[in-house]
Amino acid sequence: MTLDTLLSITAEAPDEAVRAKARRRWDAIAKPVDGLGRFEEVVCRVASILQDPVPDLSRKALIIMCADNGVTQEGVSQTGQSVTRKVASAMGQGKSSVEIMAKHYPVDIFPVDVGINCDTAIEGVIDQKVAKGTADLLKQPAMSVQECLKGIQAGMDAARKCAEQGYRIIATGEMGIGNTTSSTALLCALTGIAPQTVAGRGAGLSDRGMQRKLHVIQEALSYHFGQQEHAGTQTGREAFEALRKVGGLDLAALTGIFIQGALSRIPVVIDGLVSAVAALSAEQIVKGCRAYMIASHRGKEPGTQEALRRLGLAPVIDADLALGEGSGAVMLLPLLDMAMLLYREGTTFSEIRMKQYERFHT
Amino acid sequence: MTLDTLLSITAEAPDEAVRAKARRRWDAIAKPVDGLGRFEEVVCRVASILQDPVPDLSRKALIIMCADNGVTQEGVSQTGQSVTRKVASAMGQGKSSVEIMAKHYPVDIFPVDVGINCDTAIEGVIDQKVAKGTADLLKQPAMSVQECLKGIQAGMDAARKCAEQGYRIIATGEMGIGNTTSSTALLCALTGIAPQTVAGRGAGLSDRGMQRKLHVIQEALSYHFGQQEHAGTQTGREAFEALRKVGGLDLAALTGIFIQGALSRIPVVIDGLVSAVAALSAEQIVKGCRAYMIASHRGKEPGTQEALRRLGLAPVIDADLALGEGSGAVMLLPLLDMAMLLYREGTTFSEIRMKQYERFHT
Repeated sequence: MTLDTLLSITAEAPDEAVRAKARRRWDAIAKPVDGLGRFEEVVCRVASILQDPVPDLSRKALIIMCADNGVTQEGVSQTGQSVTRKVASAMGQGKSSVEIMAKHYPVDIFPVDVGINCDTAIEGVIDQKVAKGTADLLKQPAMSVQECLKGIQAGMDAARKCAEQGYRIIATGEMGIGNTTSSTALLCALTGIAPQTVAGRGAGLSDRGMQRKLHVIQEALSYHFGQQEHAGTQTGREAFEALRKVGGLDLAALTGIFIQGALSRIPVVIDGLVSAVAALSAEQIVKGCRAYMIASHRGKEPGTQEALRRLGLAPVIDADLALGEGSGAVMLLPLLDMAMLLYREGTTFSEIRMKQYERFHT
Repeated sequence: MTLDTLLSITAEAPDEAVRAKARRRWDAIAKPVDGLGRFEEVVCRVASILQDPVPDLSRKALIIMCADNGVTQEGVSQTGQSVTRKVASAMGQGKSSVEIMAKHYPVDIFPVDVGINCDTAIEGVIDQKVAKGTADLLKQPAMSVQECLKGIQAGMDAARKCAEQGYRIIATGEMGIGNTTSSTALLCALTGIAPQTVAGRGAGLSDRGMQRKLHVIQEALSYHFGQQEHAGTQTGREAFEALRKVGGLDLAALTGIFIQGALSRIPVVIDGLVSAVAALSAEQIVKGCRAYMIASHRGKEPGTQEALRRLGLAPVIDADLALGEGSGAVMLLPLLDMAMLLYREGTTFSEIRMKQYERFHT
């Protein structure tokens, strides 16, 4: 894929007629108006994306994009790059946190190596390595144009395969030490927002570590985008450049998943900061793909909420989650199952011979 | 049970040593510090309540208290009392909204009639009827002292039986047309807060219906507690009087469940407005029982958040839920399962030979 090919992709809108049908179905179910709140909206959205008023969501996938970040050498995290490989190895064995959480839950989990800093393949992890991590974004662009495109392509391929294999919803996750730094830098580059308003403590930085992280992000933004206040990126090409310069291979691959969501017409669930910033990056590169995204949780990192807000998405879980690996996105799934059951099988007002509640407010 | 017996109940604190142990266990698991956010706190709380550092929560119950409210004759809801019986009948047949949502989820659901306005027993619904609904709280106390005590006792009995039968967590729910009016009135009576700041649209009131509801609540508060601004209830006896005068049998029975939670040392999950106000009522009648409560969702009714705030509890689901029946409380359960799995089986830092993250902030 060339950059021009990427930038020529267009996203069609989901099916509005199906959405309206789904809305009417909800209102016919014997319960208070909007009783399931935002879950009703999520179900309508999913139905319109899948172009099916009563979709079957039984096949679910979680794709976890794993990659290392050169910026770790600036001391922006408590641990070093070796931990990315360690956790990815655990993923390959089904022992990562999200896999343990989802042990009894029917979601197929696919960890993908798009840029872990190691030479040998990791058992149980899909090998789509583009490079052994990114360059230090404080000193040079994190990725070359080719690397960034390959990262995006890896995500698009993974999502397309899932859709082809019959999965009806894709949750996103990531693992990569240092990636809250790259994600925050990318969020700032995409939006023009100041780092101090969105930077968070990642996996648990000290005050001093936090100051260093903030300094690194500010310096990187100055280095790549000039000293001036900038207003964020305007075009798809600028957004791609931002992703390439201060992003990471995990961010690029996740961006690819979100873009492919619109092309394969499959809902893609956003997890925390890294995933949310990749979603924003995808929307800025391919306008309209946000209509295929589902928010899961609000997250602990301030940037998550900011990215979701700019995407016009409201999460349903609010628990200061900061685990990553797609754990928050996976937590949405059993809730969505419960909502879907009511939507599919709920008793209607007419079945119990009761007048439907009137909708006075929308 | 006499009123004096009720007011003499004391709640012991949960086991702080177990809580500290649970905290240490979380921190040893290979994940970011506080990675599962408030779910980590919920698990610590549950462990300390059950006095077991690694509790088995496999047996879960949902108790749904159903009752009618005399205040419906003031036109505070879109539908009439007959709907309470209809929905309770559906519950008896496993066809209510929450039962459909939890169809594939292992929670045992017990609907209880504590005050439905009907003469015959409803199949599949536990008969603990105290009265055929309450009196119109705008014109007289909703319940006599005896009725209110019996309602509380019904809830205490139901929770005690669950604990004795091996359930390790109890979710709460309710069904009763008009009960967001009684709950909002009770919230105001307990706290001194003004109705206009917490009243909501219940199952979907029009603007005019909403004005009527607000007027009814204001008039009822004036009638029972005097024209003066009042500062809420101070003593357990005053809280009981507030419950009896402007509450309902569902609220009384739920209050009993929350009180019994502290006595049987079992966590009780709060659902939406009715449940949250009952929880606050329980705490004001028996100080300290809030330590046995778990918040689930933030709810659409403004009063839910206010009641939870006063109980010092933060919900983890935020989706404008307004369904009732315990549906939001039940939605917490699969999330808690996922958190418990990680807590019980999570890979520790020492297992992967990695230095534990330091805790710089608490």
